[in-house]
Amino acid sequence: MFAEILTIGDELTRGEIVDSNSAWLAARLWDLDVTVRWMTSCRDDEADLRAALATATARVDLVIASGGLGPTEDDLTCDVVAAAAGVPISIDETARARLEMFMASRGRVVSEVNLRQTRIPTGARVHPNPAGLAPGFEVAFGAVPVVCLPGFPREIHAIWEAGLGARVDELRRGHGTAPHIARCVYRIFGRAESQLSEALRGLADGVPGATIHYQVKFPEVLVKLVVRDPDGAAAATRLAALDAELRARVGPWIYGLGEDALPLVLGRALLAAGHRVAVAESCTGGMVGALLTELPGSSGYFVGGAIVYANDEKVRQLGVALDSLAAHGAVSEAVAIEMARGVRARTGADLGVAVTGIAGPGGGTADKPVGTVWLAVDGPGDAAARTFRLQWPGARDQVRVLASWWALDLIRKAIGGGR
Amino acid sequence: MFAEILTIGDELTRGEIVDSNSAWLAARLWDLDVTVRWMTSCRDDEADLRAALATATARVDLVIASGGLGPTEDDLTCDVVAAAAGVPISIDETARARLEMFMASRGRVVSEVNLRQTRIPTGARVHPNPAGLAPGFEVAFGAVPVVCLPGFPREIHAIWEAGLGARVDELRRGHGTAPHIARCVYRIFGRAESQLSEALRGLADGVPGATIHYQVKFPEVLVKLVVRDPDGAAAATRLAALDAELRARVGPWIYGLGEDALPLVLGRALLAAGHRVAVAESCTGGMVGALLTELPGSSGYFVGGAIVYANDEKVRQLGVALDSLAAHGAVSEAVAIEMARGVRARTGADLGVAVTGIAGPGGGTADKPVGTVWLAVDGPGDAAARTFRLQWPGARDQVRVLASWWALDLIRKAIGGGR
Repeated sequence: MFAEILTIGDELTRGEIVDSNSAWLAARLWDLDVTVRWMTSCRDDEADLRAALATATARVDLVIASGGLGPTEDDLTCDVVAAAAGVPISIDETARARLEMFMASRGRVVSEVNLRQTRIPTGARVHPNPAGLAPGFEVAFGAVPVVCLPGFPREIHAIWEAGLGARVDELRRGHGTAPHIARCVYRIFGRAESQLSEALRGLADGVPGATIHYQVKFPEVLVKLVVRDPDGAAAATRLAALDAELRARVGPWIYGLGEDALPLVLGRALLAAGHRVAVAESCTGGMVGALLTELPGSSGYFVGGAIVYANDEKVRQLGVALDSLAAHGAVSEAVAIEMARGVRARTGADLGVAVTGIAGPGGGTADKPVGTVWLAVDGPGDAAARTFRLQWPGARDQVRVLASWWALDLIRKAIGGGR
Repeated sequence: MFAEILTIGDELTRGEIVDSNSAWLAARLWDLDVTVRWMTSCRDDEADLRAALATATARVDLVIASGGLGPTEDDLTCDVVAAAAGVPISIDETARARLEMFMASRGRVVSEVNLRQTRIPTGARVHPNPAGLAPGFEVAFGAVPVVCLPGFPREIHAIWEAGLGARVDELRRGHGTAPHIARCVYRIFGRAESQLSEALRGLADGVPGATIHYQVKFPEVLVKLVVRDPDGAAAATRLAALDAELRARVGPWIYGLGEDALPLVLGRALLAAGHRVAVAESCTGGMVGALLTELPGSSGYFVGGAIVYANDEKVRQLGVALDSLAAHGAVSEAVAIEMARGVRARTGADLGVAVTGIAGPGGGTADKPVGTVWLAVDGPGDAAARTFRLQWPGARDQVRVLASWWALDLIRKAIGGGR
């Protein structure tokens, strides 16, 4: 089953915003075994929109459009789709009632302009929008359903969750071959795509319907294991066997599964374990702390810490020895350990993590080129003074992000989340 | 003059990466008065690519394609374009020489696979790639030039800067009406798009060829002033008059012009003024420090600071009075001032900036709902104890980013960069 994603708006074709909706929808469709063959963006222009609709309905089995459903005169999607389908326009009464409640709660009445966003082609299937005022709708052009959605990402996500995802799955199953899909997404930090594909070489060979996909999402890599089979139980069984083999090969590098990235996964692990953490940051300037506080409720595990960009501050705030700075330099294992110990002792946290490095582009030497970063974690028992040297000759922002993630990963390992 | 942007790759249509190349190219084309009418993405599929090329060359005046120029068998762009143009494939000798030098510097020889990425349709105009091994090239289909570029953003940017931008400008001028374009991009923080459009209402009315465009780029807004005229000097003169009027209306909110965002602009201003800054962060967890260290050479103005998520740390690291915490709460003007003073005094920095707030989604009260943030800056003279209360009922990550930018903006104002 082939699909086209159509995104509509002058702000796209003028390059004022990057279209993230197409990729979001494409990933969902791929998960449902619908192949996106075309992604098209066009202007808020009636003739172009009409042409795009005609082209799309002639070359795929499903069209999903986003944008052009707002209240203003620029918003043409409903008009063009209704005209192409040869039906008049109606008001969706459920959406109108929600709009009226929304406006009443603000002491306002519904204007003609407001009401425009509740319009649908008469007879269209409505896709309710839990996150906004304009409903999505679906009109069939011959055998090709055209689904029209608003342009706001969070509204698209809400409409998908509220029923569009299930509807697309239903359409796919009705389309003929409809394998069940068992899948697992592994989130991996600390190994490059090439290292992972080497380690997992041959994993899916000879396993019917099984594929492996890699997605580099700096600084991590997502590995997606998929098994398709007409029999859902058979797909799940084969996936379980592949899962065991995959974990045997790269288990220590897997920090999580599914949607959540390392800062959230680690935050939950720290909360569950009851550990409190403090940070001591030099080249990352506060980025480790910022990541550790992404999770709501982070005050349950994050104490705070010291940003010690200047060497004087390493001494004053953390008690790093002047001798260590003189003997080894600020970017050294010895200083990283003293920073981690210092912040742990002074804040009374269970764990202290430290980062000191050369983010560049200046400041490198032959001994310590740009991209050299020393990290250390200090904690009780096994977590005492683990260190890691990162050596990554990339751009400043990449070195900083990578170093920050390595700091999180050191904490993860210190609390038993991997080797 | 109309253009189509064509991006090629399975990773796009599977939703594994968001296509930022199309928006980047579209913005550059818009600046050159070339209207992007269509943006299309397709798979690494020969038939689809051939169809996309035929469709595009039939409906616009210029096609820019990216992707599919790498060394592997998946990379089909050169083959499809050459076949459609009816020409054989050659090796670009300049690119081959660069490739050979590159491989030799790594002690390797050039393989057949490596060499694939230096292929071009015979007779094509070459667009050299200063940032990579695969050159761009341009083939005319009738009157429609098709420019093919690699898929990596930094290589596209490098090819554009190295000559493609000038080439597109040349094509546009050759296409007939070719106004000169005078333009200025204002970067504005602290005012919403609606407030700006209200303040600038009527600004361009009656000024020939003048337009204003707004681009929301959270947490800031970019305002673009454009004047088109066949006479370049006339365009520049009218732009200067509009610039003066725009500054009279919203001048204090403009922190910079052009490409660089606030962290870089402020960093340079601090370096130039010789001021050293320290941060005291609660709800932002280190984000202000991370932003202040984005600029290479930030050690010239950034000392470090304290991340004081826990109240104990506000007392221990910054000397915030227990009485203040008890009387006003951690999220209060009094505590923000004590934090800013504390970090300035203890680090010896010229300026201290503090952030304390409720990022949510929990922790709000009737008095201090989620999104309440107090900020303070402390410094000599006029900069003493400026404060600001942010009240922004948004999501946690937005509150934190917005609060961090307000902290930077407070520093900007303290050193004389606006009211």
